[in-house]
Amino acid sequence: MRKSIATVSLSGPLSEKLTAIATAGFDGVEIFENDLLSSPLSPEEVRLRCADLGLSIDLYQPFRDFEAVPADVLARNLRRAERKFAVMERLGADLLLVCSSVAPESADDDDLAAGQLRLLADRAELHGIRIAYEALAWGRHVRTYDHAWRIVEQADHPALGTCLDSFHILSRGSDPKGIADIPGEKIFFLQLADAPLMAMDILQWSRHHRCFPGQGGFDVAALVTAVVQAGYRGPLSLEVFNDVFRQADASSTAVDALRSLLLLEESAGLSAPPAPAVPSGFAFAELTAADTEPLRAVLGALGFARAGRHMSKPVELWEQGEARILLNTGVSGRRPGPALAAIGVETPDPDRAARRAEGMLAPVVPRRRAPRDAPLDAVAAPDGTELFFCRTARPDHSSWTGDFTAVPSLALPGGPGEPAAIIRRIDHIALTQPWHQFDEAALFHRGVLGLEVDDSLDLADPYGLVRSRAVASPGGGVRIVLNIAPAPGGEETRLQHIALATDDIVGAARRIRERGLGLLPIPANYYDDVAARYEPAPQDLAALAELGILYDRDENGEFFHCYTATIGRLFFELVQRTGGYRGYGAQNAAVRLAAQHAHQQGV
Amino acid sequence: MRKSIATVSLSGPLSEKLTAIATAGFDGVEIFENDLLSSPLSPEEVRLRCADLGLSIDLYQPFRDFEAVPADVLARNLRRAERKFAVMERLGADLLLVCSSVAPESADDDDLAAGQLRLLADRAELHGIRIAYEALAWGRHVRTYDHAWRIVEQADHPALGTCLDSFHILSRGSDPKGIADIPGEKIFFLQLADAPLMAMDILQWSRHHRCFPGQGGFDVAALVTAVVQAGYRGPLSLEVFNDVFRQADASSTAVDALRSLLLLEESAGLSAPPAPAVPSGFAFAELTAADTEPLRAVLGALGFARAGRHMSKPVELWEQGEARILLNTGVSGRRPGPALAAIGVETPDPDRAARRAEGMLAPVVPRRRAPRDAPLDAVAAPDGTELFFCRTARPDHSSWTGDFTAVPSLALPGGPGEPAAIIRRIDHIALTQPWHQFDEAALFHRGVLGLEVDDSLDLADPYGLVRSRAVASPGGGVRIVLNIAPAPGGEETRLQHIALATDDIVGAARRIRERGLGLLPIPANYYDDVAARYEPAPQDLAALAELGILYDRDENGEFFHCYTATIGRLFFELVQRTGGYRGYGAQNAAVRLAAQHAHQQGV
Repeated sequence: MRKSIATVSLSGPLSEKLTAIATAGFDGVEIFENDLLSSPLSPEEVRLRCADLGLSIDLYQPFRDFEAVPADVLARNLRRAERKFAVMERLGADLLLVCSSVAPESADDDDLAAGQLRLLADRAELHGIRIAYEALAWGRHVRTYDHAWRIVEQADHPALGTCLDSFHILSRGSDPKGIADIPGEKIFFLQLADAPLMAMDILQWSRHHRCFPGQGGFDVAALVTAVVQAGYRGPLSLEVFNDVFRQADASSTAVDALRSLLLLEESAGLSAPPAPAVPSGFAFAELTAADTEPLRAVLGALGFARAGRHMSKPVELWEQGEARILLNTGVSGRRPGPALAAIGVETPDPDRAARRAEGMLAPVVPRRRAPRDAPLDAVAAPDGTELFFCRTARPDHSSWTGDFTAVPSLALPGGPGEPAAIIRRIDHIALTQPWHQFDEAALFHRGVLGLEVDDSLDLADPYGLVRSRAVASPGGGVRIVLNIAPAPGGEETRLQHIALATDDIVGAARRIRERGLGLLPIPANYYDDVAARYEPAPQDLAALAELGILYDRDENGEFFHCYTATIGRLFFELVQRTGGYRGYGAQNAAVRLAAQHAHQQGV
Repeated sequence: MRKSIATVSLSGPLSEKLTAIATAGFDGVEIFENDLLSSPLSPEEVRLRCADLGLSIDLYQPFRDFEAVPADVLARNLRRAERKFAVMERLGADLLLVCSSVAPESADDDDLAAGQLRLLADRAELHGIRIAYEALAWGRHVRTYDHAWRIVEQADHPALGTCLDSFHILSRGSDPKGIADIPGEKIFFLQLADAPLMAMDILQWSRHHRCFPGQGGFDVAALVTAVVQAGYRGPLSLEVFNDVFRQADASSTAVDALRSLLLLEESAGLSAPPAPAVPSGFAFAELTAADTEPLRAVLGALGFARAGRHMSKPVELWEQGEARILLNTGVSGRRPGPALAAIGVETPDPDRAARRAEGMLAPVVPRRRAPRDAPLDAVAAPDGTELFFCRTARPDHSSWTGDFTAVPSLALPGGPGEPAAIIRRIDHIALTQPWHQFDEAALFHRGVLGLEVDDSLDLADPYGLVRSRAVASPGGGVRIVLNIAPAPGGEETRLQHIALATDDIVGAARRIRERGLGLLPIPANYYDDVAARYEPAPQDLAALAELGILYDRDENGEFFHCYTATIGRLFFELVQRTGGYRGYGAQNAAVRLAAQHAHQQGV
């Protein structure tokens, strides 16, 4: 279906919005009146600009407080409408959104409303304009889509139809089933927005917290299905009022917006893009640093050994169990401090994964590839991390590991009887997102990779709340934690960490400490509280406290975790899960974050 | 009364919070458990630190999910309590907050709850500890203060009392009248928070949107009066969970917090500080710039004439009608671009105004005063603007104008028949506050100056929402608009503007243009909309459009306004009010803000 977006959904002046909308790939726009009023472009110039950009103007909106008024107000409102018809003719727009009145002088009188809307449609028709009447969820008398439709039906005018809006319908808990009763050709327009489920005043909810479909809690797909089954053939059009999107870069928001519509089409059964190739595990994490010595020291202490060197690039492969870390020593000046630059995920079908990603507008990362390199497709995640689709050492596909030649180990010599590995694999990776991309990051990982999205949590950092949300593959093989820092900051302030799974965290932590790597100290007060809450055996508690290991429990199992110091933007976590523990130790986050701040300040 | 605050109300680690709390002047603290758990300080060290700082530890909190549980859970909960009693003994805290259970295993059984709380109080008493039981507004079974009190009454134990919390009581709309039925000595503690009136989930409201008394919509003073009348003699203690305060500087938040308690005491009739000397108008606005030429050009074009020079400082007085602008040419490097540095307000009693300000913790600005200077008291507003209390040219008080000697006028020569002045006076001054000080700025202006606070508005800037709130004297002689920019930024990004009142905006704008000063161009589309909405006479509309004059109307009158370009952080507005128009043209803000962005980018 054709795809549109209301200009109010994006940041910036009208001309920048139009460029961002066209560049993202939308077919059309709704011109939000305030954007036009604020623009130095005349309506004719906006029309030309849209034509140049290949955008149709699908709707002009909104026209407010028209219907069910006394005769003198009606006369004034009709004159007001004529002025707007003139603007629309200059714009080349032929559909006007009229939303149900909130004015005190409007009467609770459907006959009057229908009659006056019929008059308006008569006038509109003379200009080749049609009217789409929509129920605002907070309208004075008309608040539901079926009520608006009854009035339209009663008015019975060819230039008058209804506009359906997923927010207004779903925020009131209306049942979309009744949409089947509306003839498709009388649904003149369909506006789409999602929203997080919040028990709050609908007007405030609508004005500040709308988001793109798939980012909130509404079943927008079911509504779209109902509307299409009713025979609607107009565009799918986004109308989102959101405090964050108002501030965010318009071009990236526009791409995220279009992606949400592509996923929505798929969910509603209206398109069939390549299915996601859901990853089963991490193939590698790639670290970069101008000076790699500190990273080598940490990797060595964690038990990693250098296993290979890339044949054509300055990249080393460090391994332990199934955990693989690439150390990229050929970093440019852009990311001088140690940072996580890329993630490889194991996928059942790298080609399909890449096609899916491209189809879902993930930016493909251009690779300089040496002639012998195994083909490796990568896309950029919203925070800039590169995402590679791998199939490691399987007979059916070339393996990226084939590009590495074995080198002498750089591991520390083990003590007598020391087991080969203390780390089994990468448990999860945590990435701090740019402050305005929290919702789109979750949608990206769901839509592009097919990961499942957990609920969002607020974690108490000493200097503000950190929002956090995990995305994971069904089996837990891939787990990514998306965080957003309390205050806006540059890339260098966005921490990243790699959590490594061990089967014996106490032994592993001891070994690491013996190798000279300090672990993050945790205050003794925390262990008093663990003792009060969980009553562990005293010797177990002493071991945890000695090593700075944090503890959590859920209905399925237990979780033990501890942390290295932070270097650059990066730190490591050691985790041990027992039973079926599913979380990430969120309730320990406040203590850990405070300890990290204290440690960095040398307290 | 003694004044306390919960550590959770402030940003940072525990040790920094304690310092900020003591420095602001509080008498005591509530130790929020998570702050202790995250602290490297042992309980003994916290005790010592508080003693050093002169702070009593008035409460340890919270102890959760204790009462009305099965026997095995009770046994576990009592062991958990014993652990916390031990921590409290180390801390030297003798009052524990127990909040009503939210646990699924708690029973809806007041007898059981009372019996188990009696058991807890027995144990506590052995440690010299008392228990304050509080109803959480979202408790599983106990949600109201009177229900919590009934259980405490039934338990009937000397070491068990109740804790009242204004948020939990007022957010549910409970009537504080019933507090009179609780014996004062059984009210062990009183926690205070305000909140903006929002129709939303109480738990989310409480966790993110609490604010200090006077900053929200609750009648906290009436509640305090009721509690004091019941015989409560403990501290007034703030407990505020607020996303912004979590990020803001702890020392400034602590001062604002204490100011809110001082104002609350006054409102509740518990103290009688010097009454505010409500200002009646602006005496002057003081501008600074390293290079004052651009400002001189603008002032000249606006019709100001240089009337005097300060006898001992590099400051010029420019006048027009009752509008006076001080031009400070001796600016340091700290504020190189033109900026508004100070405001003088006309007050009936400068000495009382200064005493009031000091009593309300307004930072007194140290003045270097030459021997002959008239005494002029100044305090710093939250955004750093200096605020002077003036009594201009009145027989009962020395006037600051006496420090200026007349100088030859620098005004442009008027044309034939040109009226002496186009500006009558300063209509209002708009100041952009630091992003985390919006609520405290309003409370400052109300508490220190006695101004009335309007509702907060959201204005749509192209790059985000601007929150805006006016404070004004009852007659409108002093009007200050407090804005907060969409995104955090340094002082240099915080715009300021001075609105000048005229009786003939069209004539004034023409004169200003003739003098070569360009006014902010407003898009033609805006005037199409004015025509549609208000149907002005075509010639009037043409004049407005030609000069870039915006238009608004309310039930009392009309408002016309236009703008100069921005230099440094500063711009001027020309306004004409007719009838009793009370606002500031908020509905034109989006168009004006877009025009300013476009103008600054040279579009």
